[in-house]
Amino acid sequence: MSTGFDSVEALVFDMFGTVVDWRTSIAAEVAVRLRDHVPDLDAHDFADRWRAEYQPSMERVRSGEREFVRLDVLHRENLETVLDSLGVDPSSIPAEVLDAVNLAWHRLDPWPDAIAGLTLLKERFIIAPLSNANVRLALDVAKRAGLPWDAILGAEVAGAYKPDPQSYLRTAEVLGLETHQLAMVAAHNSDLASVQALGLRTCFVRRPSEHGPGQTTDLAAEGEWDVVADDFEDLADQIG
Amino acid sequence: MSTGFDSVEALVFDMFGTVVDWRTSIAAEVAVRLRDHVPDLDAHDFADRWRAEYQPSMERVRSGEREFVRLDVLHRENLETVLDSLGVDPSSIPAEVLDAVNLAWHRLDPWPDAIAGLTLLKERFIIAPLSNANVRLALDVAKRAGLPWDAILGAEVAGAYKPDPQSYLRTAEVLGLETHQLAMVAAHNSDLASVQALGLRTCFVRRPSEHGPGQTTDLAAEGEWDVVADDFEDLADQIG
Repeated sequence: MSTGFDSVEALVFDMFGTVVDWRTSIAAEVAVRLRDHVPDLDAHDFADRWRAEYQPSMERVRSGEREFVRLDVLHRENLETVLDSLGVDPSSIPAEVLDAVNLAWHRLDPWPDAIAGLTLLKERFIIAPLSNANVRLALDVAKRAGLPWDAILGAEVAGAYKPDPQSYLRTAEVLGLETHQLAMVAAHNSDLASVQALGLRTCFVRRPSEHGPGQTTDLAAEGEWDVVADDFEDLADQIG
Repeated sequence: MSTGFDSVEALVFDMFGTVVDWRTSIAAEVAVRLRDHVPDLDAHDFADRWRAEYQPSMERVRSGEREFVRLDVLHRENLETVLDSLGVDPSSIPAEVLDAVNLAWHRLDPWPDAIAGLTLLKERFIIAPLSNANVRLALDVAKRAGLPWDAILGAEVAGAYKPDPQSYLRTAEVLGLETHQLAMVAAHNSDLASVQALGLRTCFVRRPSEHGPGQTTDLAAEGEWDVVADDFEDLADQIG
């Protein structure tokens, strides 16, 4: 067992990219559902453009410019922004088609090691997503894929989007834990830097194809993380 | 399948008495942990007295007299109230003993049919506790017993104690559902009356020994509930 995990009672997980392969899943649904509506559709490019609106849309909540709204609402607004950017008038597409496309985020597939790794980690730790996904989104992904979470936590329960410190601190409070009793698992160095400053333990898991074959970011650990793992099964081998 | 459940997507469950046998579990822990501290201890009577403080303590939150605090806090305060009522000075007992007794609520055993029934119901519905328990309490009970919830919902996530309508309405909102798409499962007629008025579907499950061998309340359905079942397996037979 890796040193320093004796006091850890719960592992909380970034979801998009860390637990699930959002890019492949979104591109597959976009390719089917929007091919008749978007000329010269490049589904992976569309997925990347949609994801690129994610941080700016949450920043308007984090900055206080708008009240907290769940991620489903932001995803739906961002979908129209992407269509606009491609020269497609969103109102030219039936609302029920756009609603169905938006629910693609509820049907993301996990990385191949996720279920086996989480099942092992659950034997020793409380495991829960600490995602910017709203509860129903994370719940639907988990129920469809069979992810064995002990609870669905995250931005909606905390009322704050990561990396707002309140998102982590309120999650620790709900779990009845001090921050050093909590470890964050993420495939993104920036996520871990945010929580390390608050006293959480840090687990970096490599996901070198989150952004596709040309990925250039987060290929390696860039901080003094407590654990660096190749996947969730490796993580379980090291701390489970 | 019982008529009227075609539109139901999620079942939410009262927990204390409906899913778990709180009285037997609390009495068993009290008997061991407080026998050296309470003269002439009657562990079942102690459990009943502790539970009797439950509604009054939540009422102070529901009425606005005090801010929302999680049930763990109320249980801990109520434990001292019960000791006082028995003529025992709470400060005569080490705080760590009282803290351990308080955590007995995190170690409640489910009724014998609960896991099998929930496992069947989970195939068709989202299943989650909608309990006045805080998240960590419900999570600990579920993890210890193996209850297969899809999420842990309830008073702490909603920020309101049942039967405050906000506890149900905010839970529906988190699940992205209209109230008629939600069914409440409870062993208490009063719980079902509260939600029926809001449009939720109602499932009464008989738990004739929740209050011990002399139980006189909630032995039978006392309203026009959509389903009346003998246990969770029977419930699954009727709507699963």
